[in-house]
Amino acid sequence: MNIKLTVEYDGTNYCGWQIQPNGKSIQAVLERAVSTFLGTATRITGSGRTDAGVHALGQVANFFSDKEFEAHRIRRGLNALTPQDITVKEVEIVPDSFDARHDGRSRVYEYRILNRATPSPFYLNRAWHLHQPLDVSAMREAISCLIGEHDFSSFRAAGCDAVHPIRNVYRVSLDACCGGRLLLTIEATAFLRHMVRNIVGTLAEVGFGLRTPQSFAEYLVEVKY
Amino acid sequence: MNIKLTVEYDGTNYCGWQIQPNGKSIQAVLERAVSTFLGTATRITGSGRTDAGVHALGQVANFFSDKEFEAHRIRRGLNALTPQDITVKEVEIVPDSFDARHDGRSRVYEYRILNRATPSPFYLNRAWHLHQPLDVSAMREAISCLIGEHDFSSFRAAGCDAVHPIRNVYRVSLDACCGGRLLLTIEATAFLRHMVRNIVGTLAEVGFGLRTPQSFAEYLVEVKY
Repeated sequence: MNIKLTVEYDGTNYCGWQIQPNGKSIQAVLERAVSTFLGTATRITGSGRTDAGVHALGQVANFFSDKEFEAHRIRRGLNALTPQDITVKEVEIVPDSFDARHDGRSRVYEYRILNRATPSPFYLNRAWHLHQPLDVSAMREAISCLIGEHDFSSFRAAGCDAVHPIRNVYRVSLDACCGGRLLLTIEATAFLRHMVRNIVGTLAEVGFGLRTPQSFAEYLVEVKY
Repeated sequence: MNIKLTVEYDGTNYCGWQIQPNGKSIQAVLERAVSTFLGTATRITGSGRTDAGVHALGQVANFFSDKEFEAHRIRRGLNALTPQDITVKEVEIVPDSFDARHDGRSRVYEYRILNRATPSPFYLNRAWHLHQPLDVSAMREAISCLIGEHDFSSFRAAGCDAVHPIRNVYRVSLDACCGGRLLLTIEATAFLRHMVRNIVGTLAEVGFGLRTPQSFAEYLVEVKY
């Protein structure tokens, strides 16, 4: 049977989703739990890699089992075998054709900024603390250009092994909440290595008035067919 | 000069606000920072004690200094001397008559419950995880009786050294947010030892159908003059 997991994790102590030669990964911890539960070494497929320190509210993964189980027993079994910073929120039995990586139509990233004079104990490892005031409307103007299909080479980190740098951004928004909390939400087909944090870093320069919203747009290359 | 602090802290690793013979308190850590900053042993007055593990979004305290400082210098100085789980959010120079304890007209407590099948890495030490479904409308019916002046002896912990058990509750609400998050907000003149967690524990019994909203009200004693 094919088993789909929806996983929540605090990525602070991990090198990201994917198994790495050095560093503890989410995938490795989950594979160990699944292998222990099934009693046989098992690979799991994730919907995508995540960068080091990135958290997940609902990352999808799947694996195959020769034995049959009820979904809620798998969920309880796996949660008993994972540390407190990783929770299997949902387990579903899915058709054998389902593949977490190839069937994921889009991914949603949230990036949080805490824009106030002092850092907060509640946003340690959860938000980027920027103490100088940001011009949120200039930042909003800048991000509007992200919508659509672009070549994101400028926002791609060294060592990114994606086949090509073209991604389609479906939506992007910057919400300002009370207490200086800013939330950038971006949905795209997929993301390149460090793409979101590179976008946010450049966006902060717009927020500080070091760069115009127009110059932000110049980083993007239109895709022509 | 009299200096008012508004402090935010993650209380996970503390025994509460007040200095205790055993255990690290918020007050002790702040007094050490203030004493180092001023170069002389200094007592600070808090707006109230808090129970072990309780966090603060804006607890008020004050202390006196013989030397004169600008408010923002005090804020920066103290934040350089406190650990990451304690932040001095605001510093104000106030009239000498101001006393954080006696001038506090009310205190607001928030208590969070995570009511879903699995725990969450994002609510560790931040919410009480209850996996059985709660009847939120029965809980709302129960808490309405808290408004007003009552004798809260039933919700007072052993070892509470308050002069009397009478408190005036100004407002109380139970908000249900997405993902099974519940937020109880209660504002009162002040709180007795463990009062809020004892109220929430009894309220959970109402939520599970083990107790009626009416029986919850029977814990309160009306105050007669």
